[in-house]
Amino acid sequence: MSLYLQITRKNNLAIYRQVAEQIRAQINTGRLPSGTRLPTVRSLSAELGVTPLTVHNAYNELQADGLIESVVGRGTYVSDEAQRDAMPVDTDQPFHPDNILGDILHIMRARHVRSMAVAIPDPDLAPIDEIWGRVNQLRSEWINLSGYGEIEGDGKLRAALTLWLEDRGVKAAPSRVLVTNGAMQALNIVTRALTKPGDSVLTEEPTFLGYRHLLKTQRIRPLTVPVLPDGPDITRLEQILKSEKPRFYYTIPAFQNPTGVCFSAEKRQAILDLCRKYGTQIVEDDVYSDLYYDQPPPAAIAALPHSQHVIYLGGFSKTIMSGLRLGFIHASPPLMRKFVALRRVSDLSGAPMVQRLLAEFLNDGGFKRHMRRVRPIYQQRRNGMHDGLNRFMPSFVNWSRPTGGFCYWLDMPRIFAPGALYQLALENGIGIAAGEAFFTHDTQREHFRLSFGNLTTEAQQAGIEQLGRMIREQASKRPGADGQLKEIALTDR
Amino acid sequence: MSLYLQITRKNNLAIYRQVAEQIRAQINTGRLPSGTRLPTVRSLSAELGVTPLTVHNAYNELQADGLIESVVGRGTYVSDEAQRDAMPVDTDQPFHPDNILGDILHIMRARHVRSMAVAIPDPDLAPIDEIWGRVNQLRSEWINLSGYGEIEGDGKLRAALTLWLEDRGVKAAPSRVLVTNGAMQALNIVTRALTKPGDSVLTEEPTFLGYRHLLKTQRIRPLTVPVLPDGPDITRLEQILKSEKPRFYYTIPAFQNPTGVCFSAEKRQAILDLCRKYGTQIVEDDVYSDLYYDQPPPAAIAALPHSQHVIYLGGFSKTIMSGLRLGFIHASPPLMRKFVALRRVSDLSGAPMVQRLLAEFLNDGGFKRHMRRVRPIYQQRRNGMHDGLNRFMPSFVNWSRPTGGFCYWLDMPRIFAPGALYQLALENGIGIAAGEAFFTHDTQREHFRLSFGNLTTEAQQAGIEQLGRMIREQASKRPGADGQLKEIALTDR
Repeated sequence: MSLYLQITRKNNLAIYRQVAEQIRAQINTGRLPSGTRLPTVRSLSAELGVTPLTVHNAYNELQADGLIESVVGRGTYVSDEAQRDAMPVDTDQPFHPDNILGDILHIMRARHVRSMAVAIPDPDLAPIDEIWGRVNQLRSEWINLSGYGEIEGDGKLRAALTLWLEDRGVKAAPSRVLVTNGAMQALNIVTRALTKPGDSVLTEEPTFLGYRHLLKTQRIRPLTVPVLPDGPDITRLEQILKSEKPRFYYTIPAFQNPTGVCFSAEKRQAILDLCRKYGTQIVEDDVYSDLYYDQPPPAAIAALPHSQHVIYLGGFSKTIMSGLRLGFIHASPPLMRKFVALRRVSDLSGAPMVQRLLAEFLNDGGFKRHMRRVRPIYQQRRNGMHDGLNRFMPSFVNWSRPTGGFCYWLDMPRIFAPGALYQLALENGIGIAAGEAFFTHDTQREHFRLSFGNLTTEAQQAGIEQLGRMIREQASKRPGADGQLKEIALTDR
Repeated sequence: MSLYLQITRKNNLAIYRQVAEQIRAQINTGRLPSGTRLPTVRSLSAELGVTPLTVHNAYNELQADGLIESVVGRGTYVSDEAQRDAMPVDTDQPFHPDNILGDILHIMRARHVRSMAVAIPDPDLAPIDEIWGRVNQLRSEWINLSGYGEIEGDGKLRAALTLWLEDRGVKAAPSRVLVTNGAMQALNIVTRALTKPGDSVLTEEPTFLGYRHLLKTQRIRPLTVPVLPDGPDITRLEQILKSEKPRFYYTIPAFQNPTGVCFSAEKRQAILDLCRKYGTQIVEDDVYSDLYYDQPPPAAIAALPHSQHVIYLGGFSKTIMSGLRLGFIHASPPLMRKFVALRRVSDLSGAPMVQRLLAEFLNDGGFKRHMRRVRPIYQQRRNGMHDGLNRFMPSFVNWSRPTGGFCYWLDMPRIFAPGALYQLALENGIGIAAGEAFFTHDTQREHFRLSFGNLTTEAQQAGIEQLGRMIREQASKRPGADGQLKEIALTDR
């Protein structure tokens, strides 16, 4: 096992911080497992050509964070606590977009990582008492909620979702609602029901990264339409609908993931009109629509006149808590029968207790109260990330201006090899979502997504400052004696 | 809308009970919706040729059960309460095995139906306080359990399942465990990962009815091996492995569903040896193994020497409560990677809170205590069903002698049209699982499954008595004036 350190005197980060940050990153990524003995202060300072005080300060910082511990007379070790929090991500593995989704779920759980990789709400803002505390209030129902639920989902939840949809102008009915394990299962079921391997579907580029995995697994060919600041390129949309006859168009009109773009009312109408004209099914993913920070988004496509054929997907992972794993499909009865048949063989049904918790939360106004509480906080964070980007990003980096959702989409000239920025950031304890995961085939430009939902403005800005530095350094990189990578051999306890 | 009644004077059920039971069945199946006005006592007694007192007594019984209500001066109506409990099953739909799984989940929820159709534990015996009450004890973890979990499942649960597997002699590791939404999702993921449409897999005949749906959805050809009283027909097994090269063998060695057969140690070893010889993957579904009433089953196939390649599926729907929707896969690392990739695109992950509840229940001995408590109760019910069958079934009906699980598998000469017994029973408020759902292609014999887990001995025996009567009546059916089906037209309120 080895420790890798690279000291750059031109860096505006103090040298002891450079040492500390690099060791921290190697602990966090699991490269230095718990029990690893670190070099003595004396030997490491000699190796790096820095003063012993520099190494001492670095070790002190890591010890204060609980990542390492000194045992008198025996040396300094990576702590057990560090191990517990380390993310089990193998950063030595070659970069591959397929690994990103799994990686970022792991990364999220590593306490020392500032993850801007995942579009999730802040767990500290989750209505945890209102959801989990409600289990007690349902005591008289415990027994009824302990058996298999109905395949379609808890009746009370389907009724509550019907009202939720009607609030949004969608003509809904409980018999047209299928509750799913998050919007991801909704998307999986709809896609499998409507396609067979070799078919093509139309999506935006870039789009939700889980969708890329799904299409690949199902061997479905993605056709893509670019996202402009007010929605998809309508000319291109019509060309594709006309010439390629995709099985359906998967669209995220409200605060599109990852661009954050909110489709205008005109574009939504145009999408509906064109898809009706060419007989193409629309699958509308509306999971971000409640997360607006300037004004509510225009009516959903499924709420427009003549939209009966639109399949509407909703979910509560972005608004309430992702750990509920609750989403739903709203569709016409003939489609519903196909979807229910697929859910039956997928996992039979969801957990009735968790579904009922959501039903009660929706029914007694908890959801609306929660959204009123968190919207201003996320608005601030959205603004804070914009400020941070302005302050710390080099001028050649551009970004979207999201009016809702959790995502900024950044682009810049390609100065890193594909995946290199993602990995460099990861090794420095910063999670970002690499653009390669989102379908983008642009080899001249580099893209990445930064999510602000789960981080305070301070934490975001600290991360953006580091990212900005990495990008600047790469842009100005010249080889030299300074900044050489040192390999320091380590022994186990 | 019409009411259908058929009075048989040879029946040993009092005529007023015949009237009441048939009206009850038509309310329960949703044929007579809430608000339907029933005929007056006078007109119905005239129509049927019985005394007004007979109809009066029938109505009294239905009213006592809350199914109908009399409004002074306006008449007698199907009550709102009845509607709430009615099962939304359309028994007018032509019988089709594909509908059975959905039907029986609906039926289960209709309070007035004695369902022997579903192999589930008794909700009244579920450890509901130990599971749902534990939510409070986890208060300090609520926030950590509210986000996306890891795709593979909660770390604590995977550790607990590893111990659970090791208790059973399976060499396990947390990294080889994937938590799923019940064993159904485990089976779905394994099947999809190992096959492509057009492939064939080997299963027992009969087998788990959910599996039939799954194979059909995935367009997979089932090859079948018959189940003898100690396990599959080994000669036939070898012939199929040799000549057909199925992608895998899906087997339920412990208290096989629906036959209740427990495979002997010799048969388990023979299965492993043959599948190794012909290079066929084994998928072992072991969800019933804790439900033994005479002696524990022999070691799982996955616990035998040289069984590293066996994919082991477990779940807690039969032992703890089906509403947790928790099962798991244990498999080798290369297979695990495929399974995790499929779970990722299926629904990303399960609900961490529910997974943690199970982890704690397993870790603190709750599961073992629960099994010690319920095993004697289910043993009694198993015995009670045997007694009931002995007492009430005609001599031409045969049944299996399960040593564990929840199922009796019955067979008799074919005296009903396919599905007719299932529908007749349903209309009389009795749920059974029709043999047609379990792959059985035998046209000379009729099969059906009766489950005893969720019913007291008294309830079972009452249901079996009715079933026995239906079978006897069908066997001795001769046309005659007596017992003619009357159609009585009804009007809405």
